[in-house]
Amino acid sequence: MKKISHLKNRKKPRIVDISKKNVTLRLATAISSLKFSKKTFEKINRLKSEKGEIINISTLAGIMATKKTSELIPLCHNIPIDNVEIDIESNTKKKFLLIKCTVTSYSKTGVEMEALTGVSIASLTVYDMLKSIDKSIEIKNIRLIKKSGGKSGNFTSSWFYLIYNYLYFSMT
Amino acid sequence: MKKISHLKNRKKPRIVDISKKNVTLRLATAISSLKFSKKTFEKINRLKSEKGEIINISTLAGIMATKKTSELIPLCHNIPIDNVEIDIESNTKKKFLLIKCTVTSYSKTGVEMEALTGVSIASLTVYDMLKSIDKSIEIKNIRLIKKSGGKSGNFTSSWFYLIYNYLYFSMT
Amino acid sequence: MKKISHLKNRKKPRIVDISKKNVTLRLATAISSLKFSKKTFEKINRLKSEKGEIINISTLAGIMATKKTSELIPLCHNIPIDNVEIDIESNTKKKFLLIKCTVTSYSKTGVEMEALTGVSIASLTVYDMLKSIDKSIEIKNIRLIKKSGGKSGNFTSSWFYLIYNYLYFSMT
Amino acid sequence: MKKISHLKNRKKPRIVDISKKNVTLRLATAISSLKFSKKTFEKINRLKSEKGEIINISTLAGIMATKKTSELIPLCHNIPIDNVEIDIESNTKKKFLLIKCTVTSYSKTGVEMEALTGVSIASLTVYDMLKSIDKSIEIKNIRLIKKSGGKSGNFTSSWFYLIYNYLYFSMT
Amino acid sequence: MKKISHLKNRKKPRIVDISKKNVTLRLATAISSLKFSKKTFEKINRLKSEKGEIINISTLAGIMATKKTSELIPLCHNIPIDNVEIDIESNTKKKFLLIKCTVTSYSKTGVEMEALTGVSIASLTVYDMLKSIDKSIEIKNIRLIKKSGGKSGNFTSSWFYLIYNYLYFSMT
Amino acid sequence: MKKISHLKNRKKPRIVDISKKNVTLRLATAISSLKFSKKTFEKINRLKSEKGEIINISTLAGIMATKKTSELIPLCHNIPIDNVEIDIESNTKKKFLLIKCTVTSYSKTGVEMEALTGVSIASLTVYDMLKSIDKSIEIKNIRLIKKSGGKSGNFTSSWFYLIYNYLYFSMT
Repeated sequence: MKKISHLKNRKKPRIVDISKKNVTLRLATAISSLKFSKKTFEKINRLKSEKGEIINISTLAGIMATKKTSELIPLCHNIPIDNVEIDIESNTKKKFLLIKCTVTSYSKTGVEMEALTGVSIASLTVYDMLKSIDKSIEIKNIRLIKKSGGKSGNFTSSWFYLIYNYLYFSMT
Repeated sequence: MKKISHLKNRKKPRIVDISKKNVTLRLATAISSLKFSKKTFEKINRLKSEKGEIINISTLAGIMATKKTSELIPLCHNIPIDNVEIDIESNTKKKFLLIKCTVTSYSKTGVEMEALTGVSIASLTVYDMLKSIDKSIEIKNIRLIKKSGGKSGNFTSSWFYLIYNYLYFSMT
Repeated sequence: MKKISHLKNRKKPRIVDISKKNVTLRLATAISSLKFSKKTFEKINRLKSEKGEIINISTLAGIMATKKTSELIPLCHNIPIDNVEIDIESNTKKKFLLIKCTVTSYSKTGVEMEALTGVSIASLTVYDMLKSIDKSIEIKNIRLIKKSGGKSGNFTSSWFYLIYNYLYFSMT
Repeated sequence: MKKISHLKNRKKPRIVDISKKNVTLRLATAISSLKFSKKTFEKINRLKSEKGEIINISTLAGIMATKKTSELIPLCHNIPIDNVEIDIESNTKKKFLLIKCTVTSYSKTGVEMEALTGVSIASLTVYDMLKSIDKSIEIKNIRLIKKSGGKSGNFTSSWFYLIYNYLYFSMT
Repeated sequence: MKKISHLKNRKKPRIVDISKKNVTLRLATAISSLKFSKKTFEKINRLKSEKGEIINISTLAGIMATKKTSELIPLCHNIPIDNVEIDIESNTKKKFLLIKCTVTSYSKTGVEMEALTGVSIASLTVYDMLKSIDKSIEIKNIRLIKKSGGKSGNFTSSWFYLIYNYLYFSMT
Repeated sequence: MKKISHLKNRKKPRIVDISKKNVTLRLATAISSLKFSKKTFEKINRLKSEKGEIINISTLAGIMATKKTSELIPLCHNIPIDNVEIDIESNTKKKFLLIKCTVTSYSKTGVEMEALTGVSIASLTVYDMLKSIDKSIEIKNIRLIKKSGGKSGNFTSSWFYLIYNYLYFSMT
């Protein structure tokens, strides 16, 4: 069985030694979604210029957060980030907001945590902007959907999951 | 309809003016959960001392993150925090991990974002510790369940939701 | 002659002891301006949705910077901030952008540096957004225009200065 | 017309993708000045050891700020900085203080914002040290004067500007 | 036996709940010393203006660090600091440098960690400034010597210790 | 005589220009120790699961601190860190705790300050965890014991020192 790489002798916190790893192009994409009640979604839908601003402020917060990942996740390395792309889209029919964050870096370690931190803080900022309308808004389904570069190989969420995910949202 | 308090004239970012609000005891509780596949959950279950360490490191990361909330969420006030309690418990039967974070502060503004940031970063840290076992672990259901103190009154997630939530997990 | 309060015995850096000062409502307003060449101003004028976004991103950067003042200015106290208002307006006739930042805090020390840091970082962010159009854009006239609260009394820029300032811009 | 590189589709904040750019030696120099009233300048002139300390503390604050640029300017990349040189000189005849900051980095993106952040925070720190003497001190003329390295080519403030600048100060 | 207040049920990290504690004047003083070889001390003694600058830069670093204590020590509360005094003195006869840091705050919790962080970072900065002369310089005897305010009562290092300390240095 | 590399013209703070230095593997090891009274050591010895947690929390704090070194030590460069190893061991016979921190980085400058910051903050965190038992616990002997990589050559504490150190502890 794979060991927990962040624990030495099963119990001591440690950062992973990347001194001998190669610098390669690393990329990771994470997603999250925010689920609204029908009533809340309609209220938000009636907003005008606010919608664009909420999305832009949350995008900016997400981008800035990716640069702070190693301060937040204790055993993450501090690495230079080459690119961050955050997309926030609302699905009027399904009444949810989908956030996607892709991080790119030429570095010795993957950027999964940077991408996940980006969507998480963008999601929390959307909540912060909308909490005066509804405190029950829920952040759901924060997950990694793609990763490339590095020795551990590429990772992509299986089609099965994506279909499940689609159905899940469709049914909700 | 309630306005977006963080936008002035519907389009300009602004922090909420709390200069005339009273200092009162503010409390907020947020939860999040991590969902594992059956196979991953069994692997994790076979871990020994690691489990305690993963929980402790993630608890610590969550506590430290609450103190950084105003650096992460652009329109949050910087406030002194009086207490943070983070609990991480695993449900062997349902194969998920539940994280709860309660933040307390005597201040002029609520601590919802601090509690939500606490559970989010604790969740991301659990993911970081376990991603060498399974990259598909999903963070779900980040939400505020309780809030007290302040002019806008108390807030508690309705029983309906909690039952739904229980059933949701039971069925998954 | 007044002494330099941040130096002890004329040569040793020190923070000012505020332990015996009273908590009162402190307010400070600072301004800055950005000056454009005629050609650049016309280019910017032809921008559409970009203008609003540049202003909003810079406003947000300024607000966030006020919360970081005590990390940037070595001898500033870390204080809770109650309100920040940043206004960015362009003067089409005079071809400049005026940025104003007002900070409010119930605290034992003034918030001049917070207001000045807010306009400075907002100005730098405007520059960052526009530097692909013109690297020669200049930030000018960062200054405190108002301060109230605290033992040292209120401060307001004299009318003389404001008229001079108006004329200065009119002539440019 | 050149587009705003920090906005996607004219309205969405984005960081510039530098993943395919080359690492080259980047250098940028920015200046700022502080203008004093005759009375204030004379007071400062009568200071003794204080002057050196004010300059050194402000130099240090400027150096430290360059390392924080990517936390302050939302769409700046976090890059390793190889060198920072800050010079602060006073012009007794013209009654102003000139601050110059040069930043060097082997990286994929320019260091203009780092140099501008350096002079800005150094200037604000001078103000902070002297505000007990005169709150009207003004920070003026923050601008980039030189940039080299990178695809967009070198940039130098034209002689015209420098002469103008010299005359401007001479006349004031 | 006293329990470890930062651990719940003997094993889970927790911050101490200060929500019901009173705001009182808290003060703490910590010291540290740096020990030099005879040769190194003589080299340093021959320095001129450098000595004052090394002391001032280290003093400033120590003051700034006290404001960052809650980011460094995981279970410390973020509190506003009212005053910091750092003194650095060299004992020519005994060939050591003594650093003292006193922190004052009106708050609900003590400032021991702030004072200890202040002397530690000031000491590390002295080392950083002098490491090109001698890498073997040692930081010794970081300890709390005084604490007042708060329910747990005052604390002062016993005379015995101070005499021991004096003798220790005298003998070295 | 060697000059103080962090001062220009003997008096002005400056960061060292590393733009022309080579990227090589840099490694540094620092140690520190905490000394307990006999009574305190026995109390700590009677602790059970607490001991492991105190060590793990302090290890984590030390690792996180190495990533913040350039924010704490004013003239340190911000560099990516490849590895950090922190070991905390108690010597029952001699009644002290020994902390060792080794930092590795492929970079243009050494990592001595990172290793020293790691042991210092780990030591302060141990103190923070134990201060409810004994406020007199002392942090001693923070020093660099090994450094490799870079033009200035390798450095190792002489055997003489290590023997002295061993004897020192044996006698105490």
